Amino acid sequence: MEKYNALYAQSGGVTAVINASACGVIQAAREHGDKINKVLAARNGIVGALTEDLIDTSFESNADIAGLRYTPAGAFGSCRHKLGSLEKHRKQYERLVEVFEAHHIRYFFYNGGGDSQDTAYKVSQISKELGYPITCIGIPKTVDNDLPFTDNSPGFGSVAKYVAVSIREAGMDVASMALTSTKVFILEVMGRHAGWIAAAGGLAAEQEGDSPHVILFPEIPLNTQAFLQRVQACVKKYDYCSIVVSEGIKNPDGTFISESGLVDAFGHKQLGGVAPVIAKLVKENLGYKYHWALADYLQRAARHIASKTDVDQAYALGRAAVEMALAGKNAVMPIIVREQGATYQWSIGEAPLEKVANVEVKMPREYITEDGFGITEACRRYLSPLIQGEDYPPYRNGLPAYVKLKNLPVEKKLSTTFEVA
Amino acid sequence: MEKYNALYAQSGGVTAVINASACGVIQAAREHGDKINKVLAARNGIVGALTEDLIDTSFESNADIAGLRYTPAGAFGSCRHKLGSLEKHRKQYERLVEVFEAHHIRYFFYNGGGDSQDTAYKVSQISKELGYPITCIGIPKTVDNDLPFTDNSPGFGSVAKYVAVSIREAGMDVASMALTSTKVFILEVMGRHAGWIAAAGGLAAEQEGDSPHVILFPEIPLNTQAFLQRVQACVKKYDYCSIVVSEGIKNPDGTFISESGLVDAFGHKQLGGVAPVIAKLVKENLGYKYHWALADYLQRAARHIASKTDVDQAYALGRAAVEMALAGKNAVMPIIVREQGATYQWSIGEAPLEKVANVEVKMPREYITEDGFGITEACRRYLSPLIQGEDYPPYRNGLPAYVKLKNLPVEKKLSTTFEVA
Repeated sequence: MEKYNALYAQSGGVTAVINASACGVIQAAREHGDKINKVLAARNGIVGALTEDLIDTSFESNADIAGLRYTPAGAFGSCRHKLGSLEKHRKQYERLVEVFEAHHIRYFFYNGGGDSQDTAYKVSQISKELGYPITCIGIPKTVDNDLPFTDNSPGFGSVAKYVAVSIREAGMDVASMALTSTKVFILEVMGRHAGWIAAAGGLAAEQEGDSPHVILFPEIPLNTQAFLQRVQACVKKYDYCSIVVSEGIKNPDGTFISESGLVDAFGHKQLGGVAPVIAKLVKENLGYKYHWALADYLQRAARHIASKTDVDQAYALGRAAVEMALAGKNAVMPIIVREQGATYQWSIGEAPLEKVANVEVKMPREYITEDGFGITEACRRYLSPLIQGEDYPPYRNGLPAYVKLKNLPVEKKLSTTFEVA
Repeated sequence: MEKYNALYAQSGGVTAVINASACGVIQAAREHGDKINKVLAARNGIVGALTEDLIDTSFESNADIAGLRYTPAGAFGSCRHKLGSLEKHRKQYERLVEVFEAHHIRYFFYNGGGDSQDTAYKVSQISKELGYPITCIGIPKTVDNDLPFTDNSPGFGSVAKYVAVSIREAGMDVASMALTSTKVFILEVMGRHAGWIAAAGGLAAEQEGDSPHVILFPEIPLNTQAFLQRVQACVKKYDYCSIVVSEGIKNPDGTFISESGLVDAFGHKQLGGVAPVIAKLVKENLGYKYHWALADYLQRAARHIASKTDVDQAYALGRAAVEMALAGKNAVMPIIVREQGATYQWSIGEAPLEKVANVEVKMPREYITEDGFGITEACRRYLSPLIQGEDYPPYRNGLPAYVKLKNLPVEKKLSTTFEVA
């Protein structure tokens, strides 16, 4: 029996644990050396597949592949490129077949979020539509936690832990200075469309008065009066007010608040930064001294404080993808299944790529308190298991000793190049 | 021999390890129960001492006091209040004597930065000037790392570690997305007057091409042309450019850059945030897609990633303060002494408070590369030992199990109140 190669690629915004999935894929493939020859990786996601920019992971040591489990970001590069439809962009698919064929690739693993699973689904149809036998399995990943079917999206648990830890620490800082200094602290977190990440900040508040006191969700249009009243009440009661705000919060008219506030010296709108807008609102109406932080990429890259549960799941999903491919499955994505019961237990299930692609799961309204400023017990029960456990990377010279792969290129075999639009 | 009480207080901006010093003070005092009766704590620094707002730490369990070692922020509250001169504000000093006398306080430990050591020095002169026998020892603390005599200031090593870890992680994130997404990332860190914290980011770059590629220091006026050239060269060479910027960077005319850029919709200047100004500069001149983060309090509260060296030193300084007081010393501050030799070893020395107060140590010019955008080997040799070692707090429910003290008040004994201006 001839052995074929597998192609693995990372897509969309990277996370603290996407490389843990890569680790799972490559380790499982190496264990199945009788069935899979090499794991190649596409540099920068599907773009590398189209441009025949491939990496030969067989040159990486077992130790370095194991190190991917504790290394954040995308070891092979990622991209935001989406495959067009077969009808309109047939050339792209023909090119993929050329590349697959030239490099003996029969397995394709695409690791990404909703948009990327759309691409994975399209690749999974190549066999049927173009006659080249390729097996495609999607591997879930997104800090946005908006993939359907799966209990949660790998990458999210670690952002959740980062945000909860950070707002707990910053809240304690502000509390100790509130008498003569800052009274209001605002942490801006990711979440353009859904408030999952902001909600995770709420896990830090375990007792009455704990930080954060207010959470602003993209799902709830900002009621300025109610918000200011709430801030004032907090400062009166607890001496300070700690706020987590999602970047995607909106005015009642549906416009993004981040776009409404700041302009530069030339009158141009300043992109990004809803925290300073909220800070200004508080300062002008209540007069409180404020500070704000914007975590940006720090939150999704923070492997140093990753959730062990998240790392374990990302790794397991990578392994499961290989097992599914070898079991002859196609056009599926392994998912996390939450078992029934009081304690959190999970197993691996699967979902059809056709139904995963381009679906965004919003936060249920019952996860947000009626007043719109906090999370409910149901939300806490859902979120809390996802941040359990620490999984510290090794350190060298006081810094995390993350792995840098060799990423040696595979020799190109095609005489033609391909321009990615 | 009658036993007297000690009074401990925290002052100025809090840190990830100021409570480790509190832990050292209280544990050492408990071991010397034959000489020190109780450790009282002033709520919110010197303000609590003046207003007779005292906490009885003898109600705290040994376990909770031990927990202060891994708990960030100020467990007893802090303040930014400074004592005026004895000549002009004699009443404040008379009030302190009243409070000390009413509560049998003969030892005063003041834990803070340069301004706070000025207050400590003034209190240390009460014995001579007003005849009440009080022994005052300062305990160093400041993330700004600007105290004289001591090798470094407790609190700084942990911020340094946070910044170096964060810019390493975020740099890896940006590197993996650079082909189709963000090309320039900017992390804004603390440092109004000195670039120590920004410099620490440089520790993350151990090999050619590592993040960060550019550091902007308050000591070096921004040369816009040279900066933009540097950013462009980085993007061409490494596909992206990672930047650490100190909040205190200035224009060549000496004005703060953070004050020059953004105005709100009403034309008012927006406070804080030099990162977006730099981002705009890059975007308008080079057209690169950018992201920026502003760490703010997260950096100084980040006990979850504290430097073990920093924690050990903060704790040792707290203990040393008690030993010095019991040895009959007054008006001194224990300091960290760096021993000669190739490996980092430190011991405790002492410095006179009179010479510590109100002195700000700047970064030596030879710690900054000639082009002004990086750190030298000498700087690396100085900084690297300060971030060595991890000292993780215990976790509960996926979150750091920081200690919350009871902070029971001491019954007031004075019939008069005191208004702090």
